[in-house]
Amino acid sequence: MSESLRNRLFEELDALVLIDPHTHINPLDAASKSLADILGYHYYTELAHAAGMPRAAIEDPSLSPKEKVGRLAEGLGHIDNTVQLSWLLEAAKELFGVELERLDGQNWEQLYDVAQAKFDQADWEEQVLRLSKLEAVFLTNDFDDALDGFDTHRYVPCLRTDDLVFHFAKASVRERLAKCSQSQLGSLTDLEQALRQRFEHFTSRGARACAISLPPDFAPQNVSQSTAEHALQAVLKDGEETSPEQRRNLGYWVFWKLAECCAEFGLPFDLMIGVNRSVYPAGVYQGQDLYDSRVSLIQYRELFNAFPNVTFPISVLASVTNQELVSYAWIFPNVVCNGHWWYSNTPSFIARDLQARMEAVPRNKIVGYYSDMYKLEFALPKFRMYKRCLAKVLSEYFVLEMGWSETRAIELGKQILRGNVETIFY
Amino acid sequence: MSESLRNRLFEELDALVLIDPHTHINPLDAASKSLADILGYHYYTELAHAAGMPRAAIEDPSLSPKEKVGRLAEGLGHIDNTVQLSWLLEAAKELFGVELERLDGQNWEQLYDVAQAKFDQADWEEQVLRLSKLEAVFLTNDFDDALDGFDTHRYVPCLRTDDLVFHFAKASVRERLAKCSQSQLGSLTDLEQALRQRFEHFTSRGARACAISLPPDFAPQNVSQSTAEHALQAVLKDGEETSPEQRRNLGYWVFWKLAECCAEFGLPFDLMIGVNRSVYPAGVYQGQDLYDSRVSLIQYRELFNAFPNVTFPISVLASVTNQELVSYAWIFPNVVCNGHWWYSNTPSFIARDLQARMEAVPRNKIVGYYSDMYKLEFALPKFRMYKRCLAKVLSEYFVLEMGWSETRAIELGKQILRGNVETIFY
Amino acid sequence: MSESLRNRLFEELDALVLIDPHTHINPLDAASKSLADILGYHYYTELAHAAGMPRAAIEDPSLSPKEKVGRLAEGLGHIDNTVQLSWLLEAAKELFGVELERLDGQNWEQLYDVAQAKFDQADWEEQVLRLSKLEAVFLTNDFDDALDGFDTHRYVPCLRTDDLVFHFAKASVRERLAKCSQSQLGSLTDLEQALRQRFEHFTSRGARACAISLPPDFAPQNVSQSTAEHALQAVLKDGEETSPEQRRNLGYWVFWKLAECCAEFGLPFDLMIGVNRSVYPAGVYQGQDLYDSRVSLIQYRELFNAFPNVTFPISVLASVTNQELVSYAWIFPNVVCNGHWWYSNTPSFIARDLQARMEAVPRNKIVGYYSDMYKLEFALPKFRMYKRCLAKVLSEYFVLEMGWSETRAIELGKQILRGNVETIFY
Repeated sequence: MSESLRNRLFEELDALVLIDPHTHINPLDAASKSLADILGYHYYTELAHAAGMPRAAIEDPSLSPKEKVGRLAEGLGHIDNTVQLSWLLEAAKELFGVELERLDGQNWEQLYDVAQAKFDQADWEEQVLRLSKLEAVFLTNDFDDALDGFDTHRYVPCLRTDDLVFHFAKASVRERLAKCSQSQLGSLTDLEQALRQRFEHFTSRGARACAISLPPDFAPQNVSQSTAEHALQAVLKDGEETSPEQRRNLGYWVFWKLAECCAEFGLPFDLMIGVNRSVYPAGVYQGQDLYDSRVSLIQYRELFNAFPNVTFPISVLASVTNQELVSYAWIFPNVVCNGHWWYSNTPSFIARDLQARMEAVPRNKIVGYYSDMYKLEFALPKFRMYKRCLAKVLSEYFVLEMGWSETRAIELGKQILRGNVETIFY
Repeated sequence: MSESLRNRLFEELDALVLIDPHTHINPLDAASKSLADILGYHYYTELAHAAGMPRAAIEDPSLSPKEKVGRLAEGLGHIDNTVQLSWLLEAAKELFGVELERLDGQNWEQLYDVAQAKFDQADWEEQVLRLSKLEAVFLTNDFDDALDGFDTHRYVPCLRTDDLVFHFAKASVRERLAKCSQSQLGSLTDLEQALRQRFEHFTSRGARACAISLPPDFAPQNVSQSTAEHALQAVLKDGEETSPEQRRNLGYWVFWKLAECCAEFGLPFDLMIGVNRSVYPAGVYQGQDLYDSRVSLIQYRELFNAFPNVTFPISVLASVTNQELVSYAWIFPNVVCNGHWWYSNTPSFIARDLQARMEAVPRNKIVGYYSDMYKLEFALPKFRMYKRCLAKVLSEYFVLEMGWSETRAIELGKQILRGNVETIFY
Repeated sequence: MSESLRNRLFEELDALVLIDPHTHINPLDAASKSLADILGYHYYTELAHAAGMPRAAIEDPSLSPKEKVGRLAEGLGHIDNTVQLSWLLEAAKELFGVELERLDGQNWEQLYDVAQAKFDQADWEEQVLRLSKLEAVFLTNDFDDALDGFDTHRYVPCLRTDDLVFHFAKASVRERLAKCSQSQLGSLTDLEQALRQRFEHFTSRGARACAISLPPDFAPQNVSQSTAEHALQAVLKDGEETSPEQRRNLGYWVFWKLAECCAEFGLPFDLMIGVNRSVYPAGVYQGQDLYDSRVSLIQYRELFNAFPNVTFPISVLASVTNQELVSYAWIFPNVVCNGHWWYSNTPSFIARDLQARMEAVPRNKIVGYYSDMYKLEFALPKFRMYKRCLAKVLSEYFVLEMGWSETRAIELGKQILRGNVETIFY
């Protein structure tokens, strides 16, 4: 009974049209052009590399897309147990109509050619959106993105701010900001103006969120104006040679200013907490970041208190932080649970973290899932993985243990999958 | 088969008469007087607040109990997924005879009136105790509680010591201690006398435990007498202006002295580890505390070694600490697992933490559950939630996986629910 | 269906002949001589002690083996819920042919005598190996072990290095090293020579791994030669009086040198991360160690980057570290998941940690299990416990949720149980 119940709930959830509230889609190049765009996703390159394939074999710039796929296919046998590879097979089945148990040196070319025929169709992007039931897709835009040339209702701009907080000591970042905001950046006043100008630009183009990813040791404070001015002058003078402490102080000031702008411009501030960048510099492209799971939301205590009118949708990188997220969302009105991020985006962590959220966080404060995808073809399999976990929690906990009706369980599931995205970001 | 097995085990466990080994019951006012006492429980006010209801709407002192319930009922739709709300509905069904799927603006008044008729019965307190199968209820008494006017076999005194360890710098705390113990508090010798006098008072009135809640950074040491004397003199001179270090040293000394008194007077010392107070000062009453899950029982290493004859029933606030609790209880004879506290008191954390305990901690060292309630009506639904988790672990793990007979599984469940409370606290 | 599926998978896995990649077997005395060798396993003595039996009762040197078993049997009632005790009962059934529900004061003597008749058979060791389907057993050898007198294909040497890294300040350790390597140890050059000589000795005798257990605060660095030379001279002069910092620096240097030797001699370097020794000095023999779960693999960042050609099979003591292990193995080619260690070696932690590994780590990088046993009789029940967890994950996740065929699931299980031991260590 439990299995058919779970399947029924899954089917209901799977019928829903979605808004994907966080991706890395390029709106001018949203769908894949070849299977190399799919197999080039860092999950496959980093897993194949971790399983033994040399980086040079994967990243050789002289490879054609087809050769690259052929090489990677040879390494997939070692990772065919991973849920990440199952995304690819599910996309192959649902989007390309090719059903495979395994992808390997024998059959990759067949898939490559069938998929290519799809990619070459003029309306492939539309087809993928329709097959994936995607109505809108949030982007991750550099702060100096012109946000031109695409439908911002379909591809919704979001202001990504890592560069401003963590890389302002780089001349290139300062130059980009000066240029796009047409300001001098000689003082905190200039800098504040530039940041506000960016919020004006983004919100005028329909942006729905400001977002940032943060390392485990980040503990934002409201740095005093004089400390920050001192830090800014040091950075303007010494650039990347500035002391870590001065850079950190300026970063905290910028971060606080971003939160102020979120309050002023009415944007949620997505915090993606816990990543250490370049832990493994010899790793493949985008396969170098890891983390220290010893992080606490207590580090954000001052922030959450200072900005009661800013909504903070929070993603945590390590599952151990999920209980704190549940507790903070249960107490702070402005803290919202947001998706299942990266290293916590596998079925056992999702199911566990999701149930903990659903049994103790107000239902209007759980944003179920975002795909984090770089190419449109991944929304379908990634959301499906999530919906299976959601159907499992709804059926086993809400219906069977708590005695809910199926109708009521489905309502809850739909609110988490879609409704809350609308109420929180729109 | 597994479902009916689980139900059979639940029924057996649910038939047991209980001793609740930790609550916040006021023995002179133990049962609710109106539904506002029930809906005023911090779980409902803080969740409704976190879901969007303004604090002022909840805490307006001019509200009548009925108006307060009406306001809160409007906010319950957002939290109807939470297990905390299910406690209320289960209490409504089992204690008031009102079966509801949801509580909202439409039906709250009906429940209010039916419940009021119950509350107004002269023997309501007796009824609740009987319906809840409660034989005795442990209290949380201030150190200067006279412990007068109630049956201490039914309402069992426990000496709560947070004020002594963490707030001794407050003049009011020192005055209360000086008054109730009739001592001067001018020296460590005075202070030790006052503490011993309190243990004499409490144990003469049937106290069964000393208890304290502790922040994550607490790492008790046996501070030298001269360091402590120095700290005491500083506190007597400067009160709350005393340096944090001096206050901490005095706190550690007092804590150590409490442990010595526990040894001398034969009381278990309940440690509730991991809470940060007032993390969200703008939160509702009792809805302001959170935590940093980065805590370790290694911080208590010196304590556990120094007091082999004191039993330490330990509650941990974050589920991540549960594995350490299991391991420490498996090695230290004086470490006991105690209940599922606060932010870890939801079904998925309970089930997970409980199984980890039951598969590796000696069975005589697991105190299953306490309700932590402020009003008697909550023992029934909270213990039921726990018994469901216990029945799940007993059926799925012990009977189905380990091949135990049902009789044997029930014996184990009863020891954990009740037997160990007797052997450890009596 | 799910239960019979799980049983079928278990039977297939249980038919496999195994190599146990980490034990503490003494190859000259591998099997038990009496039931006291079994009940003397620290799991039973420490659990009986934690449940209330005095250490003196257990460790009284005047006790005969039979008296010792009789005493311990009296304390087993309190620990009959533990999985550790179930190992003993499963061994009794499968190895001695005695099926018991409980072991206690009434029936221990019967078991004692039946077991003794087995132990007294000349080929008992062979029998156990055959019944346990053990082909080879890795050892834990002191660095000065002569590795003589046993078949190194059956009992495979491994170089254990804790003493060299953590206890080099002890004169006895230096003397042992000087003696076995026939060097002076007056300089880093001498010390390096001695270490290399040990690797030569061990690899010439068929060693398959270098291994070490590490405390939570260990964060290895490539200490400079001059810092290390300075530290060595301090240690040679002051021995155990040397400052902790100097000792730590020398320890880091030795550890780094061991990693260099692993690279040079082609040995995997087993890291067992997270144990604090002697947390409870009054505990029974081998029942004194615990841990601080606040540890991160980020502490090994420099090491993993510096030695791309050394394979690091990693065991973590606390389950909270498992997600980092999964993530690091998913990114770093030289990081491998290794078994379920000690306080994480109970069914709920194994099942949870194992599924997290199997859904995201390349299948060729998961070494399923090792017994960690001191006597051969424990491989059978400990591996069985693990195979049940593995069959559970394979059936519930891979077959039922992911749609794999049983054949494919069994293939994966066999690779994890046995295949990877061969590819990684041979």
